[in-house]
Amino acid sequence: MNNFEFKNPTKIIFGKDSIDKIKNEIPEDAKVLLLYGGGSIKKNGIYDQVKTALSKVNIVEFGGIPANPEYSVLMDALKVIKDEKITYLLAVGGGSVIDGTKFLSAAALYDGDTPWNILKNNIATKEGMPFGTVLTLPATGSEMNSGAVITRKETQEKLAMGGPGLFPVFSILDPQVIASIPERQLANGITDAFTHVLEQYMTYPIGASLQDRFAESILQTLIEVAPKVIKDPTDYKATADFMWSCTMALNGLIQKGVPGDWAVHAIGHELTALFGIDHARTLAVIAPSHYKYNFEAKKEKLAQYGERVWNITEGSTDDKAYTAIEKTVDFFHGLGIDTKLSDYTKDYKGTAEKISKRFTERGWLGLGEHQSLSPDKVEEIVKMAY
Amino acid sequence: MNNFEFKNPTKIIFGKDSIDKIKNEIPEDAKVLLLYGGGSIKKNGIYDQVKTALSKVNIVEFGGIPANPEYSVLMDALKVIKDEKITYLLAVGGGSVIDGTKFLSAAALYDGDTPWNILKNNIATKEGMPFGTVLTLPATGSEMNSGAVITRKETQEKLAMGGPGLFPVFSILDPQVIASIPERQLANGITDAFTHVLEQYMTYPIGASLQDRFAESILQTLIEVAPKVIKDPTDYKATADFMWSCTMALNGLIQKGVPGDWAVHAIGHELTALFGIDHARTLAVIAPSHYKYNFEAKKEKLAQYGERVWNITEGSTDDKAYTAIEKTVDFFHGLGIDTKLSDYTKDYKGTAEKISKRFTERGWLGLGEHQSLSPDKVEEIVKMAY
Repeated sequence: MNNFEFKNPTKIIFGKDSIDKIKNEIPEDAKVLLLYGGGSIKKNGIYDQVKTALSKVNIVEFGGIPANPEYSVLMDALKVIKDEKITYLLAVGGGSVIDGTKFLSAAALYDGDTPWNILKNNIATKEGMPFGTVLTLPATGSEMNSGAVITRKETQEKLAMGGPGLFPVFSILDPQVIASIPERQLANGITDAFTHVLEQYMTYPIGASLQDRFAESILQTLIEVAPKVIKDPTDYKATADFMWSCTMALNGLIQKGVPGDWAVHAIGHELTALFGIDHARTLAVIAPSHYKYNFEAKKEKLAQYGERVWNITEGSTDDKAYTAIEKTVDFFHGLGIDTKLSDYTKDYKGTAEKISKRFTERGWLGLGEHQSLSPDKVEEIVKMAY
Repeated sequence: MNNFEFKNPTKIIFGKDSIDKIKNEIPEDAKVLLLYGGGSIKKNGIYDQVKTALSKVNIVEFGGIPANPEYSVLMDALKVIKDEKITYLLAVGGGSVIDGTKFLSAAALYDGDTPWNILKNNIATKEGMPFGTVLTLPATGSEMNSGAVITRKETQEKLAMGGPGLFPVFSILDPQVIASIPERQLANGITDAFTHVLEQYMTYPIGASLQDRFAESILQTLIEVAPKVIKDPTDYKATADFMWSCTMALNGLIQKGVPGDWAVHAIGHELTALFGIDHARTLAVIAPSHYKYNFEAKKEKLAQYGERVWNITEGSTDDKAYTAIEKTVDFFHGLGIDTKLSDYTKDYKGTAEKISKRFTERGWLGLGEHQSLSPDKVEEIVKMAY
């Protein structure tokens, strides 16, 4: 096991009818900016629940944060924060709204030239404006971690940020919100959480037995509940397991003491930036090719995953590892998630070279758990994913 | 899944040579009371490592906190805290030293008549004096939770306390400390952590799939590493897995959203109070009888545990459940832990009645996950454990 530090101070408030408890978490003298996305919260009743719970609090609203939270939109929100002397942020939404809120939490207290520097220079935020979240779409784990990914259309970039000051003070997780999520987004959420676990697990054996088993536990649970959640998003037991699995998939716990890969995300982000493909779907496109390309380096963990998660008992290590990749592809297909770039765009030619060139320009010369995936290798992986 | 709230702000610093990092965690202007037990830290080098790391900090020492931290000894330490105007506590030890430090953290800021009230009236501490820990004996999980158990010889009592203000600010977990732990205490630690998981798992199915799998993951890992740790406590991989498993067994995570039992602990505490039997060994005495006595209520989870943790594939639910209890007893025996009260004392007669009477007097009329274990049932369980 590698040495590690772990601290996660976010308070989770989980369960049926828990949105009302928000009133115990936000100080009554706070001036709150309520941030949300396209407005679905006004149709499914979540907006009303939040407003009722916070009837004694001074609230300003900012809606319209898009999927892949856009820098220019967030800069408009930042102006509201300054103009209105906001003291507390409340994200009501999925990973995009929460990630956007994290950027605002950092930017509100940032005293440099332009908040873009936080992203461009990857500045770790030690203290941000306090914020809470009401999660409306389980997927990214952003409700219990301190990281965010922000998109800037102008430059077709998608960059990560974070820091110990960017944990939500609290997050409300009411599985009942899942009932109104469209199937497409449920499939995305399952795929996203599943791949988050793979990024922290599918590397090489390091002898961290408990972390491995926790990772496998999340994968097994997602596989178990995925068809139930898709079939009936009002199935409370299944949605509760799904929601908690998504949070645990990326709250830091399973990545402590083990190597991380994250090449699938780094490459996938480019596909979203270039083609606007849903984040989760880019992961399903890249992961299988990535694991096949790096088969020798990853086959021991692939085989362990095959044995413990997919109950593959027959064959050699290579056989089990290969079958495990196939099982993963089948799992994504079963959710209605395509796993080839050509399923999403006809204009895929040249994509591999373009991504490789971008990574070279950014100085990203070695991705993955061994920092060995050079831009030319990334190019091969993307071509395999066409 | 039941509704739950979860917040655990303790910073874990885990790994080889991590004791030195303590210097980054305690403010240099703090006046620290360094608390420890019988003095083994002066023989195994941990004391020197701590003193070297904190060479710039003003430290007062208080040693001699016994196993089952004793109220009267802690009251002496409290006097030192007041006299010396201590501002920060540092526990260097196992669960007993850490639990004692938690009591002192609460008592130092308590403004009631006598600190005994904190225990007698089970007062939840919202704010305590800040404290950190250097864990020297993995077992209780106290390094990452907010609970403590304190003993008072004068009245032969052992009572629990806690509260959100009693999480350690930080805890240092260096698996290398395990090399100098005597085999007896290693066996106790494994048994203690194992039973902590059972108390939060061996109840009835509530449909919390992820929590179940996390609990099973800890049990599987403890079973895997126990013989290695006992055989060679310098085996870093095994001791690291063991140490992290003990912490995860009782840091709150696996108990969220599920029913808890804790009858084994409640009864076991009495055996320690009456006979001075090691805490972990009292759990190994009570657990098997408890599970046999409450077989019908627990057999579904017992069978699941048998299947997933002990790989029992044959037989009915009853068969699997029964075999799982036997496997558990064998596991304890394999560690050199006896599982009958008569193995520890010749004076066991009348113990069941005595414990039953105490529970009645305290108003503990219904233990266990259904609050249905009345004192007369407790009496039966203890008799079965003779």
